[in-house]
Amino acid sequence: GFATAAQSNKVTIGLIPADGIGREVIPAARQVLESLPKSELSPRFEFIHLDAGFEHFQKHGVALPEETLARLRGECQGALFGAVSSPSHKVAGYSSPIVALRKHLDLYANVRPVASVAGTGQKQIDMLIIRENTECLYIKQERIETDANGLKVAYADRRISEYASRRAGLMAFNMALMRDKLRSSIPASERLWQGKPKVTIIHKSNVLSITDGLWRETVRGVKENNAALYAGVDMDEQLVDSMVYRMFREPEAFDVVVAPNLYGDIISDGAAALVGSLGLVPSANVGDNFVVGEPVHGSAPDIAGQQKANPIAAIRSAGLLLEHMGYSGDAARIYQAVDGVLREGLIKTPDLGGKSTTQEVTDAVCKRL
Amino acid sequence: GFATAAQSNKVTIGLIPADGIGREVIPAARQVLESLPKSELSPRFEFIHLDAGFEHFQKHGVALPEETLARLRGECQGALFGAVSSPSHKVAGYSSPIVALRKHLDLYANVRPVASVAGTGQKQIDMLIIRENTECLYIKQERIETDANGLKVAYADRRISEYASRRAGLMAFNMALMRDKLRSSIPASERLWQGKPKVTIIHKSNVLSITDGLWRETVRGVKENNAALYAGVDMDEQLVDSMVYRMFREPEAFDVVVAPNLYGDIISDGAAALVGSLGLVPSANVGDNFVVGEPVHGSAPDIAGQQKANPIAAIRSAGLLLEHMGYSGDAARIYQAVDGVLREGLIKTPDLGGKSTTQEVTDAVCKRL
Ligand SMILES: CC(C)[C@H](C(=O)O)[C@@H](O)C(=O)O
Ligand SMILES: CC(C)[C@H](C(=O)O)[C@@H](O)C(=O)O
Repeated sequence: GFATAAQSNKVTIGLIPADGIGREVIPAARQVLESLPKSELSPRFEFIHLDAGFEHFQKHGVALPEETLARLRGECQGALFGAVSSPSHKVAGYSSPIVALRKHLDLYANVRPVASVAGTGQKQIDMLIIRENTECLYIKQERIETDANGLKVAYADRRISEYASRRAGLMAFNMALMRDKLRSSIPASERLWQGKPKVTIIHKSNVLSITDGLWRETVRGVKENNAALYAGVDMDEQLVDSMVYRMFREPEAFDVVVAPNLYGDIISDGAAALVGSLGLVPSANVGDNFVVGEPVHGSAPDIAGQQKANPIAAIRSAGLLLEHMGYSGDAARIYQAVDGVLREGLIKTPDLGGKSTTQEVTDAVCKRL
Repeated sequence: GFATAAQSNKVTIGLIPADGIGREVIPAARQVLESLPKSELSPRFEFIHLDAGFEHFQKHGVALPEETLARLRGECQGALFGAVSSPSHKVAGYSSPIVALRKHLDLYANVRPVASVAGTGQKQIDMLIIRENTECLYIKQERIETDANGLKVAYADRRISEYASRRAGLMAFNMALMRDKLRSSIPASERLWQGKPKVTIIHKSNVLSITDGLWRETVRGVKENNAALYAGVDMDEQLVDSMVYRMFREPEAFDVVVAPNLYGDIISDGAAALVGSLGLVPSANVGDNFVVGEPVHGSAPDIAGQQKANPIAAIRSAGLLLEHMGYSGDAARIYQAVDGVLREGLIKTPDLGGKSTTQEVTDAVCKRL
């Protein structure tokens, strides 16, 4: 991470709950990290609380304080971000802090695993979505003009670069290999994905032949230029509209999926519907020097403060954070504890049809660590 | 339409099968139109065959011949378009003929009804997607540059105008009123949508505050500026990523959905998954002077020429064409015949789990007209 740990296994994590249920699920994730059994190899966590969000903007005029960025860079090896509320109308001076964070820390890939848990009766799915995280329409270069009739015309730039596409593509192929390696350690009968590892490239180059054409060519080039390394990884592609269709019809057909920023945003919400709740799906914003775990769900103002939020997405995001920081053993413990709670199916929040509180689910996970 | 019919009820329809299964489903739709029982009020059809598509481009160097456009404008009151194959790589000089057709004929709204058929065991859904059809990233203004490191950087312009957003918004509110009126003629117990008519605005203005901000404000303004006319229509909104999630969780929560071009493209494929097959979902590209019916599915080269294609999307598109040309009685006949075949569930193509051919399904629909 940006800040090198003073002692080798001391890990400082920035906690940025931000808005709404972020304030319930981030403490839940913290509790799970603190409950991990201590061994000589496992990290000693320190947590620092950092501000950001729309409510912070409303009080202090800034959505992502300089201090938050400075302390992430200066003191932390990783962070957990909660969720951010979106004003429904344009608010002068406000801009999404999570989009800004991804940009300022160069967190170039958003890694979103969407997997069903065996024994819960869900459709079999074991997909990893890699979302390019720095460009596309998210560069927010927009302008507005007035036409000859006095009507408004607005434009946004969509940027696709060879540099960013290649980094996202490399992440996708490397994760495909890594997943394949991890799978080989579980019995074949328990593996959800049975075939050769595969990367599916999402695009819309039938319309956007230049931007999505560059994306497609560059990601394909990652395999072609590293033919020996990635020989064991299949590659195919899917138009973004067809992807949303196929994902619902045959989710079991996808292993690693790599998409430009906006398509990745949309597809990952769709995939979340397949596993039953957005409250289950974690993500990690990954850069070469820093990782920010972030549940895929939003701030859910309608249920905030009522102990109804599902903490599992945030808890799994803490697992992803550890995984990408190199603590894969501790990460696996978290995943298994969560899967155990889901498989048992007794303690669950309302989004999954249960009546348990955020705290009860968190405690149940901690008990299984 | 552009060309005024010589006799009041003579209707000339341009048939543009284009590629792949377009060549099977457009003749099927034609057969259904020709099989409509003749009355004094019903139209007398004439059909003219028109060329377009990727295969036509490969043979003749042009995807949408000038002659096709000229004859649509000069001789036709409406058209049916099949499907177009997309080259998987950039082909110099090729550009999608359906995108060009929408633009040249100013077909500013793409109307996509997605509804389940009562008695088929499908999740209840009765949604009408209105997709803005002329701008957004579909203006295809793209450019490519080389950065200081010799790497490529591509840009696309996304255009959102007040003019186009208002037209799409007006279509959405008018269709909401029209659907409400039609519903009132069927028994309450048989209505899929029970509430007040509703328009849901799709956007991503938490990131694209200027372009999607303009879209959102303009569509909201349609209701606000016509408060009396649209007083009976509810209005809400949904971020595009949440929409894909919610649509899959609670499809019954949506009546009319209005979206910018690309979001509309993605959402309508997603909605198609909910009713069981893309082979069921029709669309109409609607302008003030012309309508082009078009199944939402693609050219499906893998099954082309094998009589496996589901003709229902194209047949329903012919219904939509009639509806938007003012022949709502004949349109209703087509819809009811199709629903009857689906409800019976005996004659169906492989996409629906059956073994019937394109021709058998078409004949079954014709028999019920
Ligand atoms: C809150 C919003 C800016 C964000 C995004 O679009 O990236 C969210 O939807 C996500 O997926 O993390
Ligand atoms: C073929 C393609 C250009 C087209 C589109 O994106 O509009 C198709 O997906 C559709 O939905 O009609």
